[in-house]
Amino acid sequence: MKARIHVMLKNGVLDPQGKAVQHALGSLGFDGVNEVRQGKIIELELAETDTEAARSSVDEMCRKLLANMVIENYTIELES
Amino acid sequence: MKARIHVMLKNGVLDPQGKAVQHALGSLGFDGVNEVRQGKIIELELAETDTEAARSSVDEMCRKLLANMVIENYTIELES
Repeated sequence: MKARIHVMLKNGVLDPQGKAVQHALGSLGFDGVNEVRQGKIIELELAETDTEAARSSVDEMCRKLLANMVIENYTIELES
Repeated sequence: MKARIHVMLKNGVLDPQGKAVQHALGSLGFDGVNEVRQGKIIELELAETDTEAARSSVDEMCRKLLANMVIENYTIELES
């Protein structure tokens, strides 16, 4: 089973990486980019075949390692 | 209009960041994680309202700045 996790900074948390990208896009002549936020995707290939067990396991991975719950939100998508 | 870009390393390109995550998950006792690959998400808030124009502009941003076409693939999702 494949899991895809999206980790993004919470709203209101400053995103200096996003700001840098926005500035760089402006320098390259791309106008009309009002906001940029950058996050990460983590794709896992799991041996687990049960969807509920996989979701609970991935949720624990996010809380323990993959996301910083103080400043980041995560979403989990599973594909069997 | 909002654009979400997913940038992932191409298949076959070594992903040391993913390997590090896989190793760390193993150390934390999560078994059965066969592969981990990490990429980035970039969310743009665009002033452009026309979907085709937005897609073409975001595509150019990816090729010029956001993705390294030699080793990375990107996909673009637009939401009006």
